[in-house]
Amino acid sequence: MVIDMKRIGKNVIECEKDVAAVSFAAVGGKKEAEGALGTYFDTTFTDSYFGKESWEKAESLMQSEALNLALTKGNIKDREVDMLFAGDLLNQCISSSFAARSLNTAYLGQYGACSTMAQTIIMAAISVESGAADTAAAVTSSHFCTAERQFRLPLEYGGQRSPSAQWTATASGAVIIKRDKNSPVKIKRMCPEKIIDLGVKDMANMGAAMAPAAAETLTDFFNDTKTSPKDYDRIFTGDLGSIGSSLLYELMAKNNFDLAPYHSDCGVMLYDIKLQDVHAGGSGCGCSASVLCGYILNEMKKGSLKKVLFCATGALMSTVSSQQGESIPGICHLVEFERN
Amino acid sequence: MVIDMKRIGKNVIECEKDVAAVSFAAVGGKKEAEGALGTYFDTTFTDSYFGKESWEKAESLMQSEALNLALTKGNIKDREVDMLFAGDLLNQCISSSFAARSLNTAYLGQYGACSTMAQTIIMAAISVESGAADTAAAVTSSHFCTAERQFRLPLEYGGQRSPSAQWTATASGAVIIKRDKNSPVKIKRMCPEKIIDLGVKDMANMGAAMAPAAAETLTDFFNDTKTSPKDYDRIFTGDLGSIGSSLLYELMAKNNFDLAPYHSDCGVMLYDIKLQDVHAGGSGCGCSASVLCGYILNEMKKGSLKKVLFCATGALMSTVSSQQGESIPGICHLVEFERN
Repeated sequence: MVIDMKRIGKNVIECEKDVAAVSFAAVGGKKEAEGALGTYFDTTFTDSYFGKESWEKAESLMQSEALNLALTKGNIKDREVDMLFAGDLLNQCISSSFAARSLNTAYLGQYGACSTMAQTIIMAAISVESGAADTAAAVTSSHFCTAERQFRLPLEYGGQRSPSAQWTATASGAVIIKRDKNSPVKIKRMCPEKIIDLGVKDMANMGAAMAPAAAETLTDFFNDTKTSPKDYDRIFTGDLGSIGSSLLYELMAKNNFDLAPYHSDCGVMLYDIKLQDVHAGGSGCGCSASVLCGYILNEMKKGSLKKVLFCATGALMSTVSSQQGESIPGICHLVEFERN
Repeated sequence: MVIDMKRIGKNVIECEKDVAAVSFAAVGGKKEAEGALGTYFDTTFTDSYFGKESWEKAESLMQSEALNLALTKGNIKDREVDMLFAGDLLNQCISSSFAARSLNTAYLGQYGACSTMAQTIIMAAISVESGAADTAAAVTSSHFCTAERQFRLPLEYGGQRSPSAQWTATASGAVIIKRDKNSPVKIKRMCPEKIIDLGVKDMANMGAAMAPAAAETLTDFFNDTKTSPKDYDRIFTGDLGSIGSSLLYELMAKNNFDLAPYHSDCGVMLYDIKLQDVHAGGSGCGCSASVLCGYILNEMKKGSLKKVLFCATGALMSTVSSQQGESIPGICHLVEFERN
């Protein structure tokens, strides 16, 4: 008998049908290649333009590359992908739509700011579980140069960065999701979540804006599943950076969870924070996506990680909302991966 | 036995579990209230600011209003909604995220430009079908003033509009979706689709950019389901406008389908095109959303329409992609509604 997904408590969804991350790939830029996880990337580019005439076109190419690599590594034809869930930080998600333009696949654009990688995986897993798709793909990207000029200042201006600022990663990650009993890395439970906004308005301190959302999601997940941090090999957030991570520990302690010993943040992991001048760490849709598809899923495949929580955080503001005096709504979606 | 969704052919998904549009609401502005479908709106506002200090905040309020009205009409509490799928045209989808901020519901931002209403419904239906959500909501909005200043010119500039230009609707629509055997309007089949880009670059002629995507989706759907236009009471596109609709008829004729007698376009229906100076018709995520939630679903509930195709079209470009010389990628997602 075919069984439906189960809802556990208010927030958690349990997969029932051997929904697996069958293949994945990570692509990055020069700084990412030189970072702490540089060797985990499938491909890195040394030029920020990737041979294209604009950074936006380069970012789009990076998404195409990540998806194509994930398909090739999994021996899957692009025409086998029934639904593509993709997103990025650019206005109207052009990195994703222009990357998807050449594909013969249904395209569903997702926007969850830096939480988008978890969101695309959740949507892909639900689609596979429902039978709407046999094979689905989840892809996100970000590019330092496209994000800086859209959200902050022209790069030529050479603006001073605040110590709490994070460095938008030039990176992309792609995962192919389908039902596969024999594939080792399964998606076990998921926790798509509500928006949390505690009133932080500082666009140069995204970690502080997003930490409350991460705390809410993790607390809800532990309570709904009756588990605690020690039940997992590693709990990854992306991307709170060093400041947001400290805040998260404080907030979790208030909820009686000791998170620090089990926690790593993708934004802290991606770079050598001291040597690479990235201030509070990495960020951007491509940061957690590339750490997931480069490091985490590879370590799971090897067997060195078996039970993992991937909690991608996003800040859902725009330059317009901030100029109009609004605070920054945070969100955090969680995906639990388990190795057979 | 619980049955999965079925895939039909390459593109179509068939719902199996009495997934119903149990409640819906449409909200609009002054021009929309004075338009051809004015009496179908649940609420209309006469001031473009809706009492808020910015148009962006007004648009966000409009989404909240549409969702709250749909919930109230369906006697559904907001805490019963497990997943909210919402989208709009603004950079980083702020109308949606700021509207969702006050809700205790998982938020999944969607971006499909003017096709977003069909996309949100597809995602909500898949989530309900899979068991990931018992109740899901689909909401989109657009606002003439927020869209003009973001995509075109400051309103104060009083720029001349091209004859092929469409008028972004100030409107929002919301649908609540859940399994309900007794609710009359069911979601029967869906067709999420690929991007089609034939190289149109004119941002003032979106109808021409999107018509090929509508033709592709309708042709795929008719072929996969072995049906033709005459099998449906009405086939609605949103929003090709008058120019895009004519192009669609030509393209469908090449595929041997006579569409015109069975077709209406939401952008043509919403306004009195001659009297209201909207040139080629309405557009924007809120246009097809409000025609669906105001006119179409109400007529289905009454029984005057029984089998309907709702095909929302989107243009997935940004001002940056157009400034960089890119053409406009079009997309069209289809939802088939059927009355019991």
